[in-house]
Amino acid sequence: MTIKAIVFDAYGTLYDVQAVARVTDAAFPGQGDTITQIWRLKQLEYTWLRGLMGRYVDFRTVTRDSLGYTLGTLGLDADSALFDRIADAYNTLSLYPEAVEALGQLAHYRLAILSNGSPDMLDALVRNSGLDRILEAVISVDAKKAYKPDPRAYELIEERLGVPPREVLFVSSNGFDVAGAKSFGFKVARIERVTPAALRQDLTGGARIGPATMFRALRTQTEALGFAADATINSLLALPDAIRSFGD
Amino acid sequence: MTIKAIVFDAYGTLYDVQAVARVTDAAFPGQGDTITQIWRLKQLEYTWLRGLMGRYVDFRTVTRDSLGYTLGTLGLDADSALFDRIADAYNTLSLYPEAVEALGQLAHYRLAILSNGSPDMLDALVRNSGLDRILEAVISVDAKKAYKPDPRAYELIEERLGVPPREVLFVSSNGFDVAGAKSFGFKVARIERVTPAALRQDLTGGARIGPATMFRALRTQTEALGFAADATINSLLALPDAIRSFGD
Repeated sequence: MTIKAIVFDAYGTLYDVQAVARVTDAAFPGQGDTITQIWRLKQLEYTWLRGLMGRYVDFRTVTRDSLGYTLGTLGLDADSALFDRIADAYNTLSLYPEAVEALGQLAHYRLAILSNGSPDMLDALVRNSGLDRILEAVISVDAKKAYKPDPRAYELIEERLGVPPREVLFVSSNGFDVAGAKSFGFKVARIERVTPAALRQDLTGGARIGPATMFRALRTQTEALGFAADATINSLLALPDAIRSFGD
Repeated sequence: MTIKAIVFDAYGTLYDVQAVARVTDAAFPGQGDTITQIWRLKQLEYTWLRGLMGRYVDFRTVTRDSLGYTLGTLGLDADSALFDRIADAYNTLSLYPEAVEALGQLAHYRLAILSNGSPDMLDALVRNSGLDRILEAVISVDAKKAYKPDPRAYELIEERLGVPPREVLFVSSNGFDVAGAKSFGFKVARIERVTPAALRQDLTGGARIGPATMFRALRTQTEALGFAADATINSLLALPDAIRSFGD
């Protein structure tokens, strides 16, 4: 097998979704972390539930709906300007520090993003971070109106790049996305942003288990869904080594 | 419109899923609440993810997989006898205190359960709690291999009872299930087990936000999915009043 294309998840893999905490905490001091975690948890729940219900709306709408849920649950009021400013934080996420160097090392592969993000969100995100100059394609699941891990979302890679699944390395830090991509038939590298040992320490070390720890317990570990990654690495910079380990 | 059948969700609506905390805390003292919340959160996530992936396994397996995920994340070991004992806690959940009296008030309707639970789990649960003598039908989504809120799950009600959706009152405390049932076309009553005011107090009152509060913040409130219940009540005993308010 020869890998021809490397396709990245965006939110949580190239871009740090926790970066929205700067905006949420500025808007509601002391509650930024709680808002950030509930918001992100509900944002993905809503993609899954709408997928099952057959009630797709784009990720911009899902992001706003889940923010509205979060603020409402906390009893917080935001006027429309503040609400927009918080919601738009997803358009200016920071790249993980190693992302640009890592993509540079992989420039001899075809490089793309496949993301739940709506085309307008992804355009803004990729342009704001300069990745538009590095990536061949930024693919939104919106073209299929099907969120990951629905196989129809992953089909877009072959449709857009012309590369069959067995020649694609899919890269994600999101457990559900790792399982979905592997179930679909890609080679998959999992980026482990939170180690099991560190998380266990937070969960059982006697410290308070707050929203951020609950988020990490729910969404950063390997899912027990029966589809494991081919490689688990702790940085995007380890991708060349992982690819060599596949015998490529 | 005349309501002919009242169909109940099981887990969280007639039966208290938090009752498993007795078993989890006996198994791992001091960590029962954390286990209970992560387990329940992942259990439903796995139904949604498997639905989207097209990788159905029954709810007994999902319940065991999500328990395995939870114990693994916490770094806890359970031998197979202990693991079975914890997993089987879902077969002996307590009814909410008002459930039997409430069902008695509604005996002139056709009464059923529609649940994600596998047939073996539901058989045990309904028999252990005596509801087998009250309910006409206990319907498992397993017949369609599709978890709620997939419309195929809700189709089972008409297929089994012969009652069209507009003549069904669906009752659930689970926000995703309320939205799914309403999207499908039922009349829907939402049981509010946690009030927004009480939850806001827990989230913003300065107290520690622990796993149970995060669970309540994520799974007990009205979802922002665009499909609201026809009535929200705080007890199953209020169903006759709710039905009268529909003009029935």
